[in-house]
Amino acid sequence: MIRTSTGFEGTDREAAEKLWDMIKGVRVAMMTTLDDNGRLNSRPMATLSHAGFEDGNLWFFTRLDSQKVSELDRHWRVNLAYADPDKEDYVSLSGVGAVVRDQEKIRFLWRDIMTTWFPKGVDDPEIALLKISVDQAEYWDSPSSAMVYAYGY
Amino acid sequence: MIRTSTGFEGTDREAAEKLWDMIKGVRVAMMTTLDDNGRLNSRPMATLSHAGFEDGNLWFFTRLDSQKVSELDRHWRVNLAYADPDKEDYVSLSGVGAVVRDQEKIRFLWRDIMTTWFPKGVDDPEIALLKISVDQAEYWDSPSSAMVYAYGY
Ligand SMILES: Cc1cc2nc3c(=O)[nH]c(=O)nc-3n(C[C@H](O)[C@H](O)[C@H](O)COP(=O)(O)O)c2cc1C
Repeated sequence: MIRTSTGFEGTDREAAEKLWDMIKGVRVAMMTTLDDNGRLNSRPMATLSHAGFEDGNLWFFTRLDSQKVSELDRHWRVNLAYADPDKEDYVSLSGVGAVVRDQEKIRFLWRDIMTTWFPKGVDDPEIALLKISVDQAEYWDSPSSAMVYAYGY
Repeated sequence: MIRTSTGFEGTDREAAEKLWDMIKGVRVAMMTTLDDNGRLNSRPMATLSHAGFEDGNLWFFTRLDSQKVSELDRHWRVNLAYADPDKEDYVSLSGVGAVVRDQEKIRFLWRDIMTTWFPKGVDDPEIALLKISVDQAEYWDSPSSAMVYAYGY
């Protein structure tokens, strides 16, 4: 389903490709979660763009003992915001998070740059994958645009 | 109160100034709200930087009949994320929203560029101000940094 306020008339597939281009261009998402006090918290998260965007899933590395994982434990819905103010590109994705502890997939998706956030390396037992299953997406690629694209309904 | 993982040792005032510099630099926030289905939605919003950052309040224009106002009606907490991937600047602000219908303040804060989102101009009765009272702030200004700053405790 595609709804748009700016005359976009592409297919679902074109919309998904456009979205994926914008996501890859920005790469770092602000991931917002809800905590026990009803507070909304966000933090920058590096999208594993080499993991692709199959079936509307996006992948991230996380620590199991992180605040976001305990927040996700209580409320599994998240927002992923990709913003590039210079290009005026903005994407909002709403989805459901799942922690995935698949050692083979972790090794497959690991890149050395990850040691910035996981200094003990890929064998650290605290490392897991975070899969976000996107079920609603919106993007803005000019100041006055608004485009809503929803998956899997 | 200041907590930091990267050896920041400034005063509260210095931290607030640093934060405000980053906010002004990025200007457009992704504002996340919670809807009735537990879904987290975000959209780009132009910070009224000329309204200042007194008492930890940030100001925006909004339409009264917008989705975000009806979402705020049920759950007043929001997240504001300011991201600039080129500079590697990321700010997360958690706060409480309030709709303010003060015609004098609306006129005072109005700028012509706002007609992009409010084509009927400053006299449109659907225009209101959105005040976000920030009570927690975090910023990252390099890939590995994390700094937490909390106001008003
Ligand atoms: C760069 C940019 C800045 C925007 N600033 C505002 C703003 O200050 N106020 C506003 O109501 N909408 C603004 N919009 C439009 C919103 O992103 C959004 O489409 C609109 O407010 C409706 O949101 P809602 O249906 O979630 O309430 C802006 C859009 C862009 C691309």
